[in-house]
Amino acid sequence: MTADISIRDMMLTLGHAARTAAKLLALAPPAQKNQALNAMAAKIRRSTADILSENRRDLEAARTKDLKASFIDRLTLNEARVEAMAKGLEDIAALPDPVGEVSARWTRPNGLEFSRVRVPIGVIGIIYESRPNVTADAGGLCLKSGNAAILRGGSDGFHSSAAIIACLQRGLDTAGLPRTAIQMVPTADRACVGMMLDGLGGTIDLIVPRGGKSLVARVQQDARVPVFSHLEGICHVYVDKAADIEMARKVVLNAKMRRTGVCGAAETILIDRAGADRFLKPIISILIDAGCAVRGDEAAQAADPRVMPAGEADWGTEYLDAIVAMKLVDGVDGAMAHIARYGSQHTDAIITGDQAAAERFLKEVDSAIVLHNASTQFADGGEFGFGAEIGIATGKLHARGPVGVEQLTTFKYQVRGAGQTRP
Amino acid sequence: MTADISIRDMMLTLGHAARTAAKLLALAPPAQKNQALNAMAAKIRRSTADILSENRRDLEAARTKDLKASFIDRLTLNEARVEAMAKGLEDIAALPDPVGEVSARWTRPNGLEFSRVRVPIGVIGIIYESRPNVTADAGGLCLKSGNAAILRGGSDGFHSSAAIIACLQRGLDTAGLPRTAIQMVPTADRACVGMMLDGLGGTIDLIVPRGGKSLVARVQQDARVPVFSHLEGICHVYVDKAADIEMARKVVLNAKMRRTGVCGAAETILIDRAGADRFLKPIISILIDAGCAVRGDEAAQAADPRVMPAGEADWGTEYLDAIVAMKLVDGVDGAMAHIARYGSQHTDAIITGDQAAAERFLKEVDSAIVLHNASTQFADGGEFGFGAEIGIATGKLHARGPVGVEQLTTFKYQVRGAGQTRP
Repeated sequence: MTADISIRDMMLTLGHAARTAAKLLALAPPAQKNQALNAMAAKIRRSTADILSENRRDLEAARTKDLKASFIDRLTLNEARVEAMAKGLEDIAALPDPVGEVSARWTRPNGLEFSRVRVPIGVIGIIYESRPNVTADAGGLCLKSGNAAILRGGSDGFHSSAAIIACLQRGLDTAGLPRTAIQMVPTADRACVGMMLDGLGGTIDLIVPRGGKSLVARVQQDARVPVFSHLEGICHVYVDKAADIEMARKVVLNAKMRRTGVCGAAETILIDRAGADRFLKPIISILIDAGCAVRGDEAAQAADPRVMPAGEADWGTEYLDAIVAMKLVDGVDGAMAHIARYGSQHTDAIITGDQAAAERFLKEVDSAIVLHNASTQFADGGEFGFGAEIGIATGKLHARGPVGVEQLTTFKYQVRGAGQTRP
Repeated sequence: MTADISIRDMMLTLGHAARTAAKLLALAPPAQKNQALNAMAAKIRRSTADILSENRRDLEAARTKDLKASFIDRLTLNEARVEAMAKGLEDIAALPDPVGEVSARWTRPNGLEFSRVRVPIGVIGIIYESRPNVTADAGGLCLKSGNAAILRGGSDGFHSSAAIIACLQRGLDTAGLPRTAIQMVPTADRACVGMMLDGLGGTIDLIVPRGGKSLVARVQQDARVPVFSHLEGICHVYVDKAADIEMARKVVLNAKMRRTGVCGAAETILIDRAGADRFLKPIISILIDAGCAVRGDEAAQAADPRVMPAGEADWGTEYLDAIVAMKLVDGVDGAMAHIARYGSQHTDAIITGDQAAAERFLKEVDSAIVLHNASTQFADGGEFGFGAEIGIATGKLHARGPVGVEQLTTFKYQVRGAGQTRP
């Protein structure tokens, strides 16, 4: 009990320190924030040995547990990954500063001048799994957008994250910004997550969860503050009867196999029944030849004996692996009905030479990102031209799709008058 | 138990019907939505006698309870108020249609063409108190923005709302739109509110509470879906030493007294200590002469014997009445510190001839609406040029300030390619 109270006090102090830092950050000039970002990058490079040594501590402890190889991989740092963190911070420094941008301006008949001006959100809590590089990305994106960050990474990456945070805070210091602009929850105690979800006494404005389904589900269930959620990416590629077969093969292969573990990877390929004779075999074979397992409906199984049967569960599964589900549908309407039923409103693509079919798909599919004749793997802030991103939001409000520095801001209205009163 | 299960089933049916209607609404052309809005207005006018008769039923029941006069006033309809509802729907029809607007468009070096397109949010649940006119406003704004609405008004206005909803649904019918586009929770059972806050089986995308502090607090505490909250409007007018005295008197009077019950009414007047000699007496007297009670710090009390002492609680109170708190502060910094501590991030104004002070105030005060030389009572969607509004959001995300039809939309990214794959 005593311990709980003291953790609670410590967390509240952290929250209030973040709130104070946020006020300063909101007014910090772009050059000062960029100086800090570049200083962070330099400090991370100089501290490579320390960071890797702390990472080894985490890895040794993790190896005593029964953790998946992919978990250990995400936890593991090496010189290239440390350099990528430093480079990432420099890239963020090079982005345009979103704060202060006037996104709309108008004058009313009574002479009042309205401006809609971009401002930081305030204090952002980031809850993520044991991926030390997220520490640098999230801290850098929050700083650039003028927000204070409270970072709570997975406990298995605690020492790695602490070493990285030390570099970030050193960078803040160099630029004359408060170290409390980027803070890490200083204990692996899980109670801290609950306190963050509760808003830390009104000091947290937004929670961004970064991690798997169970983490995001818990955050959505328990949060009392707004959340930018990233749920599953059950992404579809629909190959219409009017598709170019070579384009379809190339795009399907890329959408599924370029990287299978990313949220923009395609999980289901829908083939227009009217084009099945031409498309089914070549698309199945290019996937299987590339090492992808195909689970299909009866038509797909009949087209290639290597196709395994797909069950109902396959249409709603985010494999994040070299597995794909495949099904015939009745034209663009059939494809849209399937996507509405099983999709996760993340990213979906149509391959077709028929402009009318493409425009219907782009208009009617209710997903954050809809593509015509392009791979779903373009679902990425960098590919959108947003620079770095903190994730892809699958919620509908405020941020939808890639969450970059612009999406980490909000706005206010400034109204300039000459003594106007309201009649 | 049986009753609960059947209410639950009924509510889920309502939610799914709304979801289906939302898909059709998202694609409905502007002319069809406007036809429905105008038909609703016509039907409301023709049904004035019926609506007033149902309203009398509600009023008779309400008078047997011990309700405040202001509550009864908000519940009461008359011919003018019915006409205002009809006119409001016609005004909404006349607004530009937000759906489909391309808010950004760019091309990446690989040739991919990106568009950010405005789309409806989906299904919006509106929870409000016993104010029958909100039924028409909320239904109309949701329809215009392409959203399906589930309305749950206060139980004391049940029959009035049902009569209005019947007119709205008749208007939908006339235009060939589904009646389920605007539905009313068909029972006053309070369990329905909880089900809506839980998202009605994933069918509700957004909850908009409209009502007093306790309603909004309950919604914020219990909602598992995003909420556009309207918390208190503790609005300030700061009169700087460089203010024009006549402008200050006029704006302060309007900000406080034009209508005292609106959220944009000023609750605290902050006077620059350096201008107190000139400003304090005239501002106090114009307020008191207009029938406003002034509660002040020692300086204000010394300036006018009619000023009553203000306690700590006054600085954080939304009076919504002809009462104002008044205090000396040390310049713009003192004003901003006071507002940061006691304000509700709603609307705050500075009166000054000093441009530098004004710009600092506009930049640094973290409120949805900040004004220079204008009354806080301009905090209103109509005054912003947004047409009607469903409320003023005091949350920071997605919608901030007046919530009109544009704020009831979200966006998606459409990407047009020529077979691009990601390297």
